[in-house]
Amino acid sequence: MTFELHYWPTIQGRGEFVRLALEAAGADYVDVARGAGKERQGLPAMMEFLEGNASARPPFACPFLVDGRHVIGQTAAILLYLGPRLGLAPKGEADALWTHQIQLTIADFVSEVHDLHHPIGSSLYYEEQKDEAVRRSTDFRANRLPKFFGWFEKVLERNPGNAGRELPRLVGRRLSYPDLSLFQVVEGLQYALPRATRRVLKKAPRVRALHAGVAQHRRLAAYLASQRRIPFNEEGLFRAYPELDD
Amino acid sequence: MTFELHYWPTIQGRGEFVRLALEAAGADYVDVARGAGKERQGLPAMMEFLEGNASARPPFACPFLVDGRHVIGQTAAILLYLGPRLGLAPKGEADALWTHQIQLTIADFVSEVHDLHHPIGSSLYYEEQKDEAVRRSTDFRANRLPKFFGWFEKVLERNPGNAGRELPRLVGRRLSYPDLSLFQVVEGLQYALPRATRRVLKKAPRVRALHAGVAQHRRLAAYLASQRRIPFNEEGLFRAYPELDD
Repeated sequence: MTFELHYWPTIQGRGEFVRLALEAAGADYVDVARGAGKERQGLPAMMEFLEGNASARPPFACPFLVDGRHVIGQTAAILLYLGPRLGLAPKGEADALWTHQIQLTIADFVSEVHDLHHPIGSSLYYEEQKDEAVRRSTDFRANRLPKFFGWFEKVLERNPGNAGRELPRLVGRRLSYPDLSLFQVVEGLQYALPRATRRVLKKAPRVRALHAGVAQHRRLAAYLASQRRIPFNEEGLFRAYPELDD
Repeated sequence: MTFELHYWPTIQGRGEFVRLALEAAGADYVDVARGAGKERQGLPAMMEFLEGNASARPPFACPFLVDGRHVIGQTAAILLYLGPRLGLAPKGEADALWTHQIQLTIADFVSEVHDLHHPIGSSLYYEEQKDEAVRRSTDFRANRLPKFFGWFEKVLERNPGNAGRELPRLVGRRLSYPDLSLFQVVEGLQYALPRATRRVLKKAPRVRALHAGVAQHRRLAAYLASQRRIPFNEEGLFRAYPELDD
């Protein structure tokens, strides 16, 4: 069965967390909204789910995944569903829940990163809330960035699966979907806040090692070098506004 | 087995979403941080999990639930775990995932409500970000509040389980944990933004009916009238600052 991923066609955004899991697993999927001109693809196909009357369980927003008759919204819920199907989640309820809990914490972090450039409201342009963005980013760099990276580092340090291994994982000994998401968060922050991110990574050697290791994953490296990987840009989640870095 | 809920002792906050599920089910639980002076209770017992070295899987923040050797953080993950154990979630993967997806959307909404009074940063006092809060709340009332309530209303409208029934549910025909959480969101918003909430509820009759129905749930009504229910206050998630309403 081909998975259908529905997300905005010109940004990585939250869709990228799903894309990385599908790509790392070599899954068969269609990036629906990017298939403009193809049958049952393009933006209208996505908007039908969000705004049409057909779906009994309409997602609040994209990304969402369509798998046969299942329509699943919320990035972390999509990954909870895909994890065991793609071999990217541990078996057993306790381990699966811990994996999901890490993903939900990454989701919270990502929301805070988004609000760096939109502290007042998503309906306003960045230029209309730039002063507030500068203030918010100062607090973010001083408090939130070190707090989240400190927690990721602690999780990696305390994972008994990492004992004696160079390439650390967040859960157990095998690659799981939050490893891919943390990789993406580091990538995005290196783009958006290069100076602050360099500083915080100095104190997080295990996060650095995880990031470097995921980048060398065979399928993922091929994806990152492909046209399928949309470049970071100032419409997305991670935006390079120099005034927000220091 | 007694569940242990760990959360700040003087506010409802995010802990309340877990508390409502435990109370509605008549579950046996201890509100650990509120048991100051009792053995293994009080704030230090909670902080040990967050800041101590003992836990291999430390939660990022409270609330978290301790059930035997399991420690589960993230409100939505706690409810995902508790749902089937408390009879507050439907059986079957697709229904359980949809229930969780609704809860995650409520969690997103709650984060936006929190940032109404803290648009710049949690480390700053409200008074230090009041101007930005007024600006953010204007956008929130105009755009986000109607968008989220519109989605909840649509979910209730399209749930086939509600056909011919006065008391609507978000999923199927039985009470599930997001029903309790949506009740709490309405309660909180009625406290924090009474005028804007009255307006938005006028256009959401099913949300109003759900809220009224949950308030009459026998165990929940007893809880709400008890000392266990902490009153809303200006340290919590929902804060009554008149300048943020209109």
